Amino acid sequence: MEIITGTGVNGGIAIGPLTIHRRAWSEIKASSVGDIESEILRFETALGKTVEELQVLYDKAVEDVGDAVAMIFEVHKLMLEDIEFTESVKDIIHTQKVNAEYAVDATASKLSSIFAAMDNEYMRERAADVKDASKRLLGRLQGKVSEKIGVSEPSILLADDLAPSETVQLDRSMILGFVTRLGSSNSHTAILARTMDIPAIVGAVIELKDEYEGKLTVIDGFEGKIYIDPEEETLNMLKKKQAEYLQRKMLLKELKGRESITLDGHKINIYANIGNCNDVENVINNDAEGIGLFRSEFLYLENSHYPTEEEQFLAYKTVVEKMEGKKVIIRTLDIGADKKVDYFELEEEENPALGYRAIRICLDRIPLFKTQLRAIYRSSAFGKVSIMFPMVISLEEVLELKEIVNEVKKELKDEEILFSDAELGIMIETPAAALISDLLAKEVDFFSLGTNDLTQYTLAIDRQNRKLNRFYNSHHTAVLRLIDMVVKNGHENGIWVGICGELASDLSLTDTFLKMGIDELSVSPGKVLELRNKVVNFNMDNKNN
Amino acid sequence: MEIITGTGVNGGIAIGPLTIHRRAWSEIKASSVGDIESEILRFETALGKTVEELQVLYDKAVEDVGDAVAMIFEVHKLMLEDIEFTESVKDIIHTQKVNAEYAVDATASKLSSIFAAMDNEYMRERAADVKDASKRLLGRLQGKVSEKIGVSEPSILLADDLAPSETVQLDRSMILGFVTRLGSSNSHTAILARTMDIPAIVGAVIELKDEYEGKLTVIDGFEGKIYIDPEEETLNMLKKKQAEYLQRKMLLKELKGRESITLDGHKINIYANIGNCNDVENVINNDAEGIGLFRSEFLYLENSHYPTEEEQFLAYKTVVEKMEGKKVIIRTLDIGADKKVDYFELEEEENPALGYRAIRICLDRIPLFKTQLRAIYRSSAFGKVSIMFPMVISLEEVLELKEIVNEVKKELKDEEILFSDAELGIMIETPAAALISDLLAKEVDFFSLGTNDLTQYTLAIDRQNRKLNRFYNSHHTAVLRLIDMVVKNGHENGIWVGICGELASDLSLTDTFLKMGIDELSVSPGKVLELRNKVVNFNMDNKNN
Repeated sequence: MEIITGTGVNGGIAIGPLTIHRRAWSEIKASSVGDIESEILRFETALGKTVEELQVLYDKAVEDVGDAVAMIFEVHKLMLEDIEFTESVKDIIHTQKVNAEYAVDATASKLSSIFAAMDNEYMRERAADVKDASKRLLGRLQGKVSEKIGVSEPSILLADDLAPSETVQLDRSMILGFVTRLGSSNSHTAILARTMDIPAIVGAVIELKDEYEGKLTVIDGFEGKIYIDPEEETLNMLKKKQAEYLQRKMLLKELKGRESITLDGHKINIYANIGNCNDVENVINNDAEGIGLFRSEFLYLENSHYPTEEEQFLAYKTVVEKMEGKKVIIRTLDIGADKKVDYFELEEEENPALGYRAIRICLDRIPLFKTQLRAIYRSSAFGKVSIMFPMVISLEEVLELKEIVNEVKKELKDEEILFSDAELGIMIETPAAALISDLLAKEVDFFSLGTNDLTQYTLAIDRQNRKLNRFYNSHHTAVLRLIDMVVKNGHENGIWVGICGELASDLSLTDTFLKMGIDELSVSPGKVLELRNKVVNFNMDNKNN
Repeated sequence: MEIITGTGVNGGIAIGPLTIHRRAWSEIKASSVGDIESEILRFETALGKTVEELQVLYDKAVEDVGDAVAMIFEVHKLMLEDIEFTESVKDIIHTQKVNAEYAVDATASKLSSIFAAMDNEYMRERAADVKDASKRLLGRLQGKVSEKIGVSEPSILLADDLAPSETVQLDRSMILGFVTRLGSSNSHTAILARTMDIPAIVGAVIELKDEYEGKLTVIDGFEGKIYIDPEEETLNMLKKKQAEYLQRKMLLKELKGRESITLDGHKINIYANIGNCNDVENVINNDAEGIGLFRSEFLYLENSHYPTEEEQFLAYKTVVEKMEGKKVIIRTLDIGADKKVDYFELEEEENPALGYRAIRICLDRIPLFKTQLRAIYRSSAFGKVSIMFPMVISLEEVLELKEIVNEVKKELKDEEILFSDAELGIMIETPAAALISDLLAKEVDFFSLGTNDLTQYTLAIDRQNRKLNRFYNSHHTAVLRLIDMVVKNGHENGIWVGICGELASDLSLTDTFLKMGIDELSVSPGKVLELRNKVVNFNMDNKNN
């Protein structure tokens, strides 16, 4: 038995013979070309055919694996059709008088290294997509049509790397799981593994040894472990783990498409929290009923400048459209404290958690704040958007926020830009907000409890400070009393109340929250179905809950 | 008109002619002495007479200005009688065969420079006392008897410096106020100015010019300003200020010795907060009914090692005895956060205010904590002591604290050391403690609201962070609701509830607190009488309050 580790990018356990996928690397060489015009024509023809092929692959993928995953082929198509790409290829053929293959390869290398050098992980990962798309075009130029990776029996695939397009074309009935030596947990390939639900490990410390071929292998995607030729005891343990996982999955699968209604008929909204546009696929896969917390910080953290209205608008619109009319609650920026961004030029603080953050910055930097609000409102024309403000402590702040919102709406109206009337809500994450929630409820449409911060402030304990672990209690009576108070105050004033902090997914508290009458629980996408399972089995009338 | 600034060490305004007090500096020279034994006898005789003189001065001062102030002569007596002092003088006479004057001067210089080099401001100030006491002894050796500073008409005194013994002997009917070029606000002289209530300015940037002699001068002890030969308008303004102040003082003076009872007959305890043993004089002068918060940190901050049980015991005992049976609430140490002490070896923290401080340290470092508790309990045999624990957030903590207290009491009992059964209370300074005060009230004898921290955590605003001033509201409804909740929960469980934070002295909230039914307000000593004035004029039945 050999145990090898890597990064598990999707849970699940796969058991089967190992199949090694080796790639035939055909080097691209420059060769002189006499007839420039016909070489350019050859490139354009191949490009046209590749784009057609990608369209076919896209259509098929939409059917097989869904919209979100199929998007990869759309992205590849756009990359190849991009004028920067095509002009660069033609320019190289023209000026260097070389073959199209060389020109495509050179252009792809240049572009992918530009992506690879970006200080934004998401963009870095796009380098792989450029290579992937170019390879398909190169194959076409060389008269080869890209083939799916095929295996003769259900197997676990081992490869140096898998291109996104290769991953999406994997035959789920034959590929039980895969292991790659390269790749990160944020690559398209990893995202695809999760979406397609294939147990997968990337970045594995493993060589493609011939002797591995056909060996019985187990991959544990939870732990990021590969067992080659496992001992009987280990194998039995892993088989048991697999069976339990599959049973659980089956149970949760049954919950997809069902509403989250308790046995006594109370409807709860189970929403999901997301941190960027890519997370939406997971939200949809896990059948969340909406997005309860769309953290907008990624737009600021990923950039080296304030994101423009257009950049923000596109991001919000993408998510809103993908949610197809389901509610998307966008939280305005919560920069400050531990989330620092250089270009905000914030001073060092003695106690950042009790410092200058979130709306405290926004209310001081109105133009910055209005840019975000404009972008959010513009996206509201494409679906169902709510706006949520973080770190509120007073009625005065809420009134000030609403005034700015009204100014933004008036501006948009004057400019004849379409928008919908978004619900306005606030995070309840300070003891102050919870304690005056009766007053705040009269001014907003909903409350969402941020239990992490609320607990931190209530207990006066920095939740990152490990020395205080023995004093920290996430189930502290004081916090539960505040939550109860907020729910009551919300309901008495006719607004809905949810929880989007970590406690929302704490299944040992679900009954407590349901008894309080909570209206919404927003959790990480992977926890939606577990939570729904809990909700649909709850009965308010049962005293044993 | 000339306006000169300095450090006002006692409020009040004095108006009168300036009298300059110049000191005749007689240099002490070494001269050879043949008969060593008779020189030592001469020293001992002078010492004996000086000590007698100090005793007379002490007895007189006790009568004239009270116990606390008279203590200076007692301290000087102890300094001169100290074996280190006398042995050093005799040793110098012996080995260097010199006159007693030189030996005393050399010893005094050495001792005072030791004091002056200490990294503790209180001890540094004692250097002046050594010089003061030695000068008296030197005068005696030279056949001169120290004289009181005398003036021919009521005047404002200007001097380079005033020795504490000179200050205490000032004739209050003749010395309207004084200005010195040297001295700090923590010197014995400054403390005396406050105790004797003489308008005084130290560290003034002024020369002892002959032309000043007899000039009409005003000193404004509030602002630390000296007006020599003031213009009419300025003089009138200052006269008005003086009249208002005197009227106010008269009013407050009437309140001395009175109980703090509202018009409708509700008795409030107005206590004072102190930070070290010296503050007690101020507590007594302002007639506080007890000490509501004795911060014990000074013992740790002033030292470069953990203070021993004996050191702590003596400090607590001093205060407890001086309070003559009035309640002294000692808060166990609240080190951590902004109050850092090197020898505690605490790690840097991202958010110290939400960090490892107060009982969180004590419950981890039990021996350190027990040392303090033992010292406090030992002091309880000498008066009326209560113990108060800071930064409590849970019932579990309180139970743990009580267990440690019981262990300490058992130890003392086994060792047959006397102590009284001190009241045990907790600070309510976290939202958590306020929110579960109904549960905590069942385990303790009293609550004292620490409104500074309570507000900081409730609003999630570091009160030191100036960028947040516009969001900070010390009268926030959430905080007032918490205070109200704590008072109710305390009373429902039969315990008393006080406030020892800054809000306690906020006269605009006194009515609110009295209506809530607060039992105790603990404020800085100087604010006791103003607060009493507010209380005795309050009527619960008056709806206009």
